Amino acid sequence: MTQSTPSQSTTTSPKPGGAPSGANTAQDRLARGRRALDSIDGEAGHNVIAALADIAPDFATYVIEFPFGDIYSRPGLDLRSREIATIAALTALGNASPQLKVHIHAGLNVGLSRTEITEVIMQMAVYAGFPAALNGLFAAKEVFAEADAKAGEAVSV
Amino acid sequence: MTQSTPSQSTTTSPKPGGAPSGANTAQDRLARGRRALDSIDGEAGHNVIAALADIAPDFATYVIEFPFGDIYSRPGLDLRSREIATIAALTALGNASPQLKVHIHAGLNVGLSRTEITEVIMQMAVYAGFPAALNGLFAAKEVFAEADAKAGEAVSV
Amino acid sequence: MTQSTPSQSTTTSPKPGGAPSGANTAQDRLARGRRALDSIDGEAGHNVIAALADIAPDFATYVIEFPFGDIYSRPGLDLRSREIATIAALTALGNASPQLKVHIHAGLNVGLSRTEITEVIMQMAVYAGFPAALNGLFAAKEVFAEADAKAGEAVSV
Amino acid sequence: MTQSTPSQSTTTSPKPGGAPSGANTAQDRLARGRRALDSIDGEAGHNVIAALADIAPDFATYVIEFPFGDIYSRPGLDLRSREIATIAALTALGNASPQLKVHIHAGLNVGLSRTEITEVIMQMAVYAGFPAALNGLFAAKEVFAEADAKAGEAVSV
Amino acid sequence: MTQSTPSQSTTTSPKPGGAPSGANTAQDRLARGRRALDSIDGEAGHNVIAALADIAPDFATYVIEFPFGDIYSRPGLDLRSREIATIAALTALGNASPQLKVHIHAGLNVGLSRTEITEVIMQMAVYAGFPAALNGLFAAKEVFAEADAKAGEAVSV
Amino acid sequence: MTQSTPSQSTTTSPKPGGAPSGANTAQDRLARGRRALDSIDGEAGHNVIAALADIAPDFATYVIEFPFGDIYSRPGLDLRSREIATIAALTALGNASPQLKVHIHAGLNVGLSRTEITEVIMQMAVYAGFPAALNGLFAAKEVFAEADAKAGEAVSV
Repeated sequence: MTQSTPSQSTTTSPKPGGAPSGANTAQDRLARGRRALDSIDGEAGHNVIAALADIAPDFATYVIEFPFGDIYSRPGLDLRSREIATIAALTALGNASPQLKVHIHAGLNVGLSRTEITEVIMQMAVYAGFPAALNGLFAAKEVFAEADAKAGEAVSV
Repeated sequence: MTQSTPSQSTTTSPKPGGAPSGANTAQDRLARGRRALDSIDGEAGHNVIAALADIAPDFATYVIEFPFGDIYSRPGLDLRSREIATIAALTALGNASPQLKVHIHAGLNVGLSRTEITEVIMQMAVYAGFPAALNGLFAAKEVFAEADAKAGEAVSV
Repeated sequence: MTQSTPSQSTTTSPKPGGAPSGANTAQDRLARGRRALDSIDGEAGHNVIAALADIAPDFATYVIEFPFGDIYSRPGLDLRSREIATIAALTALGNASPQLKVHIHAGLNVGLSRTEITEVIMQMAVYAGFPAALNGLFAAKEVFAEADAKAGEAVSV
Repeated sequence: MTQSTPSQSTTTSPKPGGAPSGANTAQDRLARGRRALDSIDGEAGHNVIAALADIAPDFATYVIEFPFGDIYSRPGLDLRSREIATIAALTALGNASPQLKVHIHAGLNVGLSRTEITEVIMQMAVYAGFPAALNGLFAAKEVFAEADAKAGEAVSV
Repeated sequence: MTQSTPSQSTTTSPKPGGAPSGANTAQDRLARGRRALDSIDGEAGHNVIAALADIAPDFATYVIEFPFGDIYSRPGLDLRSREIATIAALTALGNASPQLKVHIHAGLNVGLSRTEITEVIMQMAVYAGFPAALNGLFAAKEVFAEADAKAGEAVSV
Repeated sequence: MTQSTPSQSTTTSPKPGGAPSGANTAQDRLARGRRALDSIDGEAGHNVIAALADIAPDFATYVIEFPFGDIYSRPGLDLRSREIATIAALTALGNASPQLKVHIHAGLNVGLSRTEITEVIMQMAVYAGFPAALNGLFAAKEVFAEADAKAGEAVSV
């Protein structure tokens, strides 16, 4: 658990309920959020941001700032554990299939094995029922197949 | 629809996906969020912030910054409409009774009538079922009774 | 907020728990519901009713009678506010994408601006999470594109 | 399955999408709904109606009319099966504990055995997870204990 | 409680909290589960099991063992009632459309009429809202059309 | 990640879709489940099992067998990660407060720090909204206070 990511080393934790230093400007959050988004969600994250450009560009900023600039950049929990939590929650809620796929990709990006990801999803049968777990597993199956296809392309070049 | 709130007049809307001016520091968001929290949730909002102090003080900061400093402070939708949206969503989700009560209070604070609030809740029978609407109405009944009790105290003094 | 719709001017509010006048026959509710459905959901509403004809025609009657003949026809809350409530709830619940699209159309029909609709949906990030808001925004993007395409057809003729 | 209830024998099924006979007035629905409410929910149903009187009396009328006057009064599915469906749904949704208890009572009223009720609730572990089933079983435990207490009173008098 | 179904005749009910006899091996549960899966879900059930083979084969075993070998094989509630409960829950939850379709098929397999199935789904408008019921009815429409198409093939051969 | 628990060292993983060895009897699952329940949920787990005794004793057996004997006993994911997944899911679902508290206790039992637990819960604001995260944090506050009270008792003796 000696994991270290660039996005965490520069984290300025907010001063709770008080006055953070003037250095923590909106640019800091955005820049920190962009680094976290890059290292966690990769291309899929950028696609989401791009898709928001003509409907709700401010929301793209919020997505970078709050989840990535604030939450995922916090020390106190490693990214591997954060992706376990997210995959578990999205499988259990069962109503956000595109985001679940993005985070199964993200789980692979931050070092979770395919086995660990399928174990998390299977466990959701206990807390959200078998259909939620089944649909989560089929989402993982798609994501793993895409990853294999990309790896195949890379090799064949 | 000529409503104007202090929290909106100072809003610096984020520059989507770009670099907001250096003036939009974390202090700005916190200060703007505190003003919005005061005018919308009043005492109940402060109680939530206080209750977080010894378990997750950073989360108190986030609550002030994102929902209140960012979202409720945005131009583009008046606070009356924002509270209609929140009361509707919390009634429909049906799993956050304390927050629903805070926002029924908030609805009264921003100028919704009791009739308008009960109409919103009743309408949720169509989208989330009769139990969700019933439980929302009973939450409103409690909030209205508390408001009456406070009004009674004020009068009797 | 002086909005007045045909469907509201003829509303006979139910006599709570008591005996409504004989005039409030099932035909009244159906007729009132049809007028409300026309002015709110337009073509999309009729498509839903038609699609029910060969599987559950009685349910088509109920859809016209209760949501539209009873709830949307009530005085006490204007249609603009009612659509804000519905768009908020369907975005937050996140499991009824076809109905959310119908009501984003309906929001435009009753006078909400695109900005107001996207503000309502963005706000749901606070109450139901970012994936629910993202999926709501992408639904709005589709609906707005359809509206533009229709407007383009009209112009090109 | 030769069950027959008074509330069903007088059912006038709606004429789908068409013009129901003038005889199906609002009074008919209310009266039919009251009979169904009496035979299904009994005292608990009346308590709900009474509790709505000072907050949303029209909603009390709707509760009697639509769920009870329209849905539960329909031929095509016996009341025993309808209560199985309702207990299953409320256990699975897991956010309407008071209504679940009312319908566990109702299940006993329409002839379900305690075993049948607990079997339905246990089965929900498969579809909504073990916590939903556990909370449903504990609700049933309370309802059965209340029923035993009442039976005890009756005997001891 | 003398009900007996083929899938239930070999059931060894677990000895609660105690030591079941050595005869109730994992093979017993698997074999009993396979028989229940066959008689309830038929071909659709086998497709689900097959689809799990390359992503989470252990989960296929669990699906056969717990829902089918344990729950559906229990005496105390007939399969007709069990499918009513499942169709109700999956319609109300609204986030597991593929599984809802499998169980509408299963409902027909265990003897529910199309009318009974649509009545259960319509009733969910009361507990989970009209959109959940509408989406359930459209799922039923698809399943009934597939069943008609298969019946047509059989006849035309 | 060198964690090793007794409950995992004796795990016989099921042979997917095939015939597990005769040694994996129901007693094995129950015994393995009891060991996992002891080491994970401790006293709280036993209270749940005891509370089921007079309403659904078979369900107590299932709780021990499937979640604990099957899922938590699987190799492939350490218990620390499993509790992160469970705390995330129960916070996000927001409708199973008693079970969330049991698993916050369990998280402490398997080695999660209070900081890690609150980080997981705070992160759920992103995926299930701020109310779900707030209610999760207040549940954690209660559990941590109980743990402190017990520690105080132990010290004061």
